[in-house]
Amino acid sequence: MAAIDLASAGLQSRLAQLNADYARALDDDRMEEWPGFFSDPCLYLITTADNHRHGYTAGIVYADSEGMLRDRVAALREANVYERQAYRHVIGLPAVRGEADGVVRAETAFLVVRIMRDGRMDLFATGRYLDVLVDEGGALRFRERVVVCDNNRFDTLLAIPL
Amino acid sequence: MAAIDLASAGLQSRLAQLNADYARALDDDRMEEWPGFFSDPCLYLITTADNHRHGYTAGIVYADSEGMLRDRVAALREANVYERQAYRHVIGLPAVRGEADGVVRAETAFLVVRIMRDGRMDLFATGRYLDVLVDEGGALRFRERVVVCDNNRFDTLLAIPL
Amino acid sequence: MAAIDLASAGLQSRLAQLNADYARALDDDRMEEWPGFFSDPCLYLITTADNHRHGYTAGIVYADSEGMLRDRVAALREANVYERQAYRHVIGLPAVRGEADGVVRAETAFLVVRIMRDGRMDLFATGRYLDVLVDEGGALRFRERVVVCDNNRFDTLLAIPL
Repeated sequence: MAAIDLASAGLQSRLAQLNADYARALDDDRMEEWPGFFSDPCLYLITTADNHRHGYTAGIVYADSEGMLRDRVAALREANVYERQAYRHVIGLPAVRGEADGVVRAETAFLVVRIMRDGRMDLFATGRYLDVLVDEGGALRFRERVVVCDNNRFDTLLAIPL
Repeated sequence: MAAIDLASAGLQSRLAQLNADYARALDDDRMEEWPGFFSDPCLYLITTADNHRHGYTAGIVYADSEGMLRDRVAALREANVYERQAYRHVIGLPAVRGEADGVVRAETAFLVVRIMRDGRMDLFATGRYLDVLVDEGGALRFRERVVVCDNNRFDTLLAIPL
Repeated sequence: MAAIDLASAGLQSRLAQLNADYARALDDDRMEEWPGFFSDPCLYLITTADNHRHGYTAGIVYADSEGMLRDRVAALREANVYERQAYRHVIGLPAVRGEADGVVRAETAFLVVRIMRDGRMDLFATGRYLDVLVDEGGALRFRERVVVCDNNRFDTLLAIPL
């Protein structure tokens, strides 16, 4: 694991690029590339603001290895939940939180719009990514990505990656 | 007051980090930290596109010192307006406008989503920040942040900082 | 045509600044400045996700020269379609796609909110910009900007630049 260059311009830009690539993979429905954004082992958790505030570790979605992420993709492909609508992530400016023990902490707001086949659009989710990042061979990867949704209620479609 | 490094990569990144930190403080309800983003004296103004276009200096919210910003936070805490809903700022890419007399001018679009306790989300506000920034001991601070809302009508809740 | 500096921090920042300036020009209704963001000849195309996926080159809006862009602005000014509502672009983080033959490819998500005169706001469009960029005398310009809208249906107002 390489040390992460913390010069702020370089790190901000790398976080911007990483988040943009992540959002593109999901919105382009290239879900099979999604596990590659994480280190292995990892923590990927979708939770709500209320649960996060109370320190509950249970989430709506939980995965702690690349294998679990891949299983989730396979399950979604079987369920075909992607077929009827599209999603568009708009990701805010990343905030670098700091560095310790060779990892970087960052936090980034997001908004996801859902586009129905008939053209209707609605706000699907907003929230923030709480990230722990490592440099693996020159590529930033998520050791942790905790997705804290502002909305405390979801329909079943939230099974899609955010 | 230090000179601001105008090398574009560095300045863009600093503006991104500043705006991300600012939004996080508000959305995390750490309002007490909000006055610390400003120099003292300062100008903080929330106004509408119509008022701004006509050159009216009166705004929905006006503060010209750290003390006035702190008073506003105290008033909001007493009124408890934060309790029933959450907000999520999604801040666009900062545009550096230029430099003169040791200050930097920048402009940045924003969008705020309101999340009700029952889970409903709506577009609460959009607009742009017109900023004048100074470097104080290595930290960028707002000498001016004029919040020009696209929407010309507001309900009373707009008393919250944007 | 100068070589584009591909050092990621510098390029990310230049793309952020360019996109922010582009959005500001449109949202400030400075449409006459819009053609200046393109090289000449160029390709500006607004299309839908379905059309783009199927490789159709026909779009809702098509221009391949600065003259055609200027004609479009003139037509919009005559039609006065701008008068009744405002728009706010919120542009996501740019993703640099790569470099070849002296040009840079980038892709950036966008969201546009429409603000009616009576204060109502709605999601007007989401999508992504597929860009090919060149450096002309130190300024990044769009050789191509293909606007792929997620929404496959539009009302006539889409004639405005996105």
